[in-house]
Amino acid sequence: MSRQVPRQRRLDIANGRVDLSHGAGGRAMAQLIDEIFRAAFSNPLLDQANDCAVFPVTGGHIALSTDSYVVSPIFFPGGDIGSLAVHGTINDLAMAGSVPVYMAAGFVIEEGFPLRDLQRIAASMGTASRASDVAIVTGDIKVVERGKADGVFITTTGVGRIPPGVALSGDQARPGDKVLVSGFLGDHGAAIMSKRAGLGFETDILSDSAALHTLVAEMIRASGSALRLLRDPTRGGIGATLNEIAHQSSVGIMLREEAIPVRENVAAACELLGLDPLYVASEGKLIAIVAPQEATRLLQAMRKHPLGRDACIIGDVIEDPDHFVQMTTGFGGGRIVDWLFGEHLPRIC
Amino acid sequence: MSRQVPRQRRLDIANGRVDLSHGAGGRAMAQLIDEIFRAAFSNPLLDQANDCAVFPVTGGHIALSTDSYVVSPIFFPGGDIGSLAVHGTINDLAMAGSVPVYMAAGFVIEEGFPLRDLQRIAASMGTASRASDVAIVTGDIKVVERGKADGVFITTTGVGRIPPGVALSGDQARPGDKVLVSGFLGDHGAAIMSKRAGLGFETDILSDSAALHTLVAEMIRASGSALRLLRDPTRGGIGATLNEIAHQSSVGIMLREEAIPVRENVAAACELLGLDPLYVASEGKLIAIVAPQEATRLLQAMRKHPLGRDACIIGDVIEDPDHFVQMTTGFGGGRIVDWLFGEHLPRIC
Repeated sequence: MSRQVPRQRRLDIANGRVDLSHGAGGRAMAQLIDEIFRAAFSNPLLDQANDCAVFPVTGGHIALSTDSYVVSPIFFPGGDIGSLAVHGTINDLAMAGSVPVYMAAGFVIEEGFPLRDLQRIAASMGTASRASDVAIVTGDIKVVERGKADGVFITTTGVGRIPPGVALSGDQARPGDKVLVSGFLGDHGAAIMSKRAGLGFETDILSDSAALHTLVAEMIRASGSALRLLRDPTRGGIGATLNEIAHQSSVGIMLREEAIPVRENVAAACELLGLDPLYVASEGKLIAIVAPQEATRLLQAMRKHPLGRDACIIGDVIEDPDHFVQMTTGFGGGRIVDWLFGEHLPRIC
Repeated sequence: MSRQVPRQRRLDIANGRVDLSHGAGGRAMAQLIDEIFRAAFSNPLLDQANDCAVFPVTGGHIALSTDSYVVSPIFFPGGDIGSLAVHGTINDLAMAGSVPVYMAAGFVIEEGFPLRDLQRIAASMGTASRASDVAIVTGDIKVVERGKADGVFITTTGVGRIPPGVALSGDQARPGDKVLVSGFLGDHGAAIMSKRAGLGFETDILSDSAALHTLVAEMIRASGSALRLLRDPTRGGIGATLNEIAHQSSVGIMLREEAIPVRENVAAACELLGLDPLYVASEGKLIAIVAPQEATRLLQAMRKHPLGRDACIIGDVIEDPDHFVQMTTGFGGGRIVDWLFGEHLPRIC
């Protein structure tokens, strides 16, 4: 976002629409960046207006993560594509134990997209980034012809600072470890799908989209190196995420069905939509795997944080040469929680 | 790109197509990442298979830059969207004087996109990144329904290390400085537009897409702090880029038309297409502004590098309260090189 604008008539945000000139590298693009994005994200690094942001780092380790967001609808109960794009990338950084610091944002916008919607999304990103103390320091805008994209797609890339001694990784789960989640699962996916399917009576379901880095900081403080790994169960839900972990760590996982927290309205919406809540995305929840002797202390620390107050232990890491995720049910039975097959929920994030 | 894949039948790359399951977070996505992207990008950080890449940094400054690529057609003479996405982000990092080190890549793919094209793009990115010594260490894939995107869009975000003492910025041009370019201008835009317009006899025009960081390193070595700023004239060409610089640095710029290097076939294609070469994108060229006493030395250093062998001095920075870019023509006349208005060349990068 290197552009600065000479004097001219301001954008008509109430009635205007994005056109191809806004992506052409000239004055219209400079104006769009200035009046919508710089206004929403303003910070000293972005204001340098070069094609790069340059910032100091101390030695140590940094984390880099990127995610593209194509969620549909772009405005949904509990959030929008902008706040989701900020929270989601913060969360990927936080799952590595890092403190998110800077973010880059790339926009692909469809010709004809309303400027007021773009402004609303930019404002939402600005609010989310300031609330999380993460500066959006550089970015890019491309505009494609009508019908060649669906409204707007956003790719956010974050940089985080890893505190000394923190080394969380998906391959660190050990048999005997406890599996925790930070709260109710599937809210985001259920909110999106309810909205998309027009389930009017389920509109009280809100996305849980939230930035988890401060919760993670508390968890690291409480558990130190006993905390093996963190992962946020977004696309594919805890079903897919736990299978990944089992595979990466070469272990099995045994869940207790009755311990898995799903809100009643989410469970009801999932039933109506034919979805298994185990595979439905959360966007403000995490899975933690911790050494058994530290599980209670970690749980207490999580419950003191607003984003962890419904945390609970949902299962155990076990030895299993097949790396299966299994679940015991209330009636003494069990089932395999397999990898997700098929498309399940397109464009959930 | 956190996914790893259990045993299963391999992708049918020759005949297969991307479907919505490849973006759903389950086993199909894991397989796509493994067999196409990890195979093409393989490096130890990516192979950690977490949602983040974590790497060590020494103290100092780092640069962060992002660009989304929506070029159409995705395969073009002299390159493709994959190599362009790698080169373009490397170049944005290099324009800050940084040494590009790591890259993240986000993909938005349209349902039905041929797997063989995706593999070709990934291979091209892998080749470009290895050639530039920049590792693609993390990424993301989203799939949208048929008709909701146009093939594939790629967002690359790069991290570079700024050598001590380097501080290039768009606001550093001073009256008296010399304006240099590293070679022939407009090749990329002319190649894309010739291809798109079906100008058969102009198909000898190749995109100049290339990574400029090693040229930049030589230039910094030659000129030190006499080198004020670098900028790559992509979208909007040198017309837009020099106007930005003039505006950022609060100066004017005076170009000499006969000094501006444009290949004959590019000039001919521009004439046919009704384009002004001053506004046509290059993807492997740079503009340098340097203190006058160092201009010759810098030019010599640039010409020793394969990507700078056609470098030349095209004008001067002047005092101008209006921050105009002007050009003297061969007949003793002159014109204002204004900011780009209108759409000019959509989806050129």
